[in-house]
Amino acid sequence: MTKVFRLTQMLSDRLAAYANVARNLKVDAVALVPGPNFTRCVSHSFMSHERPFLLVIPAKGAPAAIVPNLELRSWDLVGFEGAVFDWRDQDGYDAAFAALAAHMGLSSLAVEGQIMRVFVHHALKKAQPDLRIIDGEAAISGLRMIKTDDDIAAITAAIRISERALERTLSGVRLGQTEKEIEQALIQALFAEGAEDHAFFPIVAAGDGSARPHAKARSDYAVKAGDALLIDFGARKHGFCADITRTVFLDHVTDEGRDVYETVLAANRKGHAVTRAGVTAHEIDDAVTGVLEASPYADRIRTKTGHGLGRDVHEAPYIMRGNHTVLEAGTVYTNEPGLYQIGNFGVRIEDDVLVTETGSVSLTCFPTNLQVLKC
Amino acid sequence: MTKVFRLTQMLSDRLAAYANVARNLKVDAVALVPGPNFTRCVSHSFMSHERPFLLVIPAKGAPAAIVPNLELRSWDLVGFEGAVFDWRDQDGYDAAFAALAAHMGLSSLAVEGQIMRVFVHHALKKAQPDLRIIDGEAAISGLRMIKTDDDIAAITAAIRISERALERTLSGVRLGQTEKEIEQALIQALFAEGAEDHAFFPIVAAGDGSARPHAKARSDYAVKAGDALLIDFGARKHGFCADITRTVFLDHVTDEGRDVYETVLAANRKGHAVTRAGVTAHEIDDAVTGVLEASPYADRIRTKTGHGLGRDVHEAPYIMRGNHTVLEAGTVYTNEPGLYQIGNFGVRIEDDVLVTETGSVSLTCFPTNLQVLKC
Repeated sequence: MTKVFRLTQMLSDRLAAYANVARNLKVDAVALVPGPNFTRCVSHSFMSHERPFLLVIPAKGAPAAIVPNLELRSWDLVGFEGAVFDWRDQDGYDAAFAALAAHMGLSSLAVEGQIMRVFVHHALKKAQPDLRIIDGEAAISGLRMIKTDDDIAAITAAIRISERALERTLSGVRLGQTEKEIEQALIQALFAEGAEDHAFFPIVAAGDGSARPHAKARSDYAVKAGDALLIDFGARKHGFCADITRTVFLDHVTDEGRDVYETVLAANRKGHAVTRAGVTAHEIDDAVTGVLEASPYADRIRTKTGHGLGRDVHEAPYIMRGNHTVLEAGTVYTNEPGLYQIGNFGVRIEDDVLVTETGSVSLTCFPTNLQVLKC
Repeated sequence: MTKVFRLTQMLSDRLAAYANVARNLKVDAVALVPGPNFTRCVSHSFMSHERPFLLVIPAKGAPAAIVPNLELRSWDLVGFEGAVFDWRDQDGYDAAFAALAAHMGLSSLAVEGQIMRVFVHHALKKAQPDLRIIDGEAAISGLRMIKTDDDIAAITAAIRISERALERTLSGVRLGQTEKEIEQALIQALFAEGAEDHAFFPIVAAGDGSARPHAKARSDYAVKAGDALLIDFGARKHGFCADITRTVFLDHVTDEGRDVYETVLAANRKGHAVTRAGVTAHEIDDAVTGVLEASPYADRIRTKTGHGLGRDVHEAPYIMRGNHTVLEAGTVYTNEPGLYQIGNFGVRIEDDVLVTETGSVSLTCFPTNLQVLKC
């Protein structure tokens, strides 16, 4: 009974927070679709696929939802007290959207532009052609920016699993294995170490592949002595993500490899050093990228410094020049400078950083010093 | 050299097919974003996250693309010969959308409504407010409906991996384990058997949980004698999905459990029996659901018969009444009747079915006869 009460109270508090976002955006309501905000709000995760599923939270008054009929019994677990318009596959969802429109009488709506798909947008407009729909992504997902203690504990758990999986994977790397074999070993290690899922499909890239920031593991590339091996991956645990990159060298490292590595590491350390509550995303990127720009490898810069991390692996704040968002204590972001030379190799070092009042804590503990694997 | 030629020829053929879709829809162009159609078209998969990434294929003339700068070196692998507008995180993507709009001079565009997110839709409209955007999902993704021999081989490989993983998982089930423990064992088995990923996050639901079609595995529910245990899952292999459900009973089964199981199995078999090239999705659902409706358990029907299966785990054709799409040879769909009674239990039996000229082939070979696990 107590547990039910607390859940309901949490739902009520969260609904109130989204209603407040609607007021701040000067729209009549906020709409959430299955994804990280929806899960955070109702404390349950739902699939959507081809079926629209919508939670509408007005600035004032009671919320309402459109729920696929086959999810009704799962929706019961949420403890939601607003109006529910369900629909069956065979009948389609137009009537549910029309009923929602009539029930709520909205003239404007903020949606999650990065999450809602166009077919839901079209269904809303079909039901009410004069509905003004704005992209409220920044404000809506912004509610997830400052993490609670529970959130941080979950991210840290995901990181610890990831680090153990990385250690296990690296100890098994042998010259002649393909990138794909190493990737599959990594994924198995993640689950063996307790991941509930991978936070995203891992990047395992060696040699010239490491020079492409989002390379896909190749089945026809065998790792060889002298290769850089870049591994970018993370576990998901309790609904939260880790996102870590380490780059190691196999058998030996060239002077250039060492110098590039130390440059990236200096940039990564600069990021840790300049982080504290009150700095802006712009200032962190400026400091980190500044280190890379001052090196002989400035033409190898391809990416911004990083991004927020939480229920989604990429979320606000985006750590880049031009983003003057002030970071507050409790924000977690990825500090992931890199240098990439096509046809040669790339290096990225990525830590997950917690912003505190007085500085920063690297939640990632896996060593960042240059590692040359004898394998 | 030969390989490059063939890839380019395939890209060229596929671009021509999407141009043809644009002509059929009477729009100036089709736009693809990273996802199953995009991967099929360019033979490489790309991430998108917060970054718009767009391939525009006009009804007549050369295609063009918007590519995040950090993906340019990966994009080189595609062998694309049209105009490319790249953009960097720090600068934003508005200029790239404006340049694309000026370059292409479109007045109408068909997009993938189920895949494209609203922020890309908004970026297109911002660059060109008078652009007419229609949801071309059915026609665009419809190109994936009839599978090639390679597609069918990939789906079959994914199914074989899934079946071995299921066998391994069921042999390890013990009374007292939680749903979550069984789910995690299943995921590990999938990777151990050679999956490149799970096709979707598995459903493992026992007892009353099995009555919720899309239940999430619980950490606090231990399976007990007499429970129905429903497992809905699949591997991904070579980019294609398996999607299989089996429901077993633990230790013993009640008369009601047996009768419900046999009813669902009869419906599943009916689906196999009525399938051949030339029948409609409506006719299959009508036959399958008809078996359930004629039983004493008609009030436990919650879902349609199934959906197409391929690069996406849910795709056209949707096997439901009202969908008069004629199935052609080479279509693969899920035949997944179920009966669900909240507070009691649910049964679903799901096979992946290949439509042939003369009938159907169940690509799923895992036995469907009632299984009572002594565990």
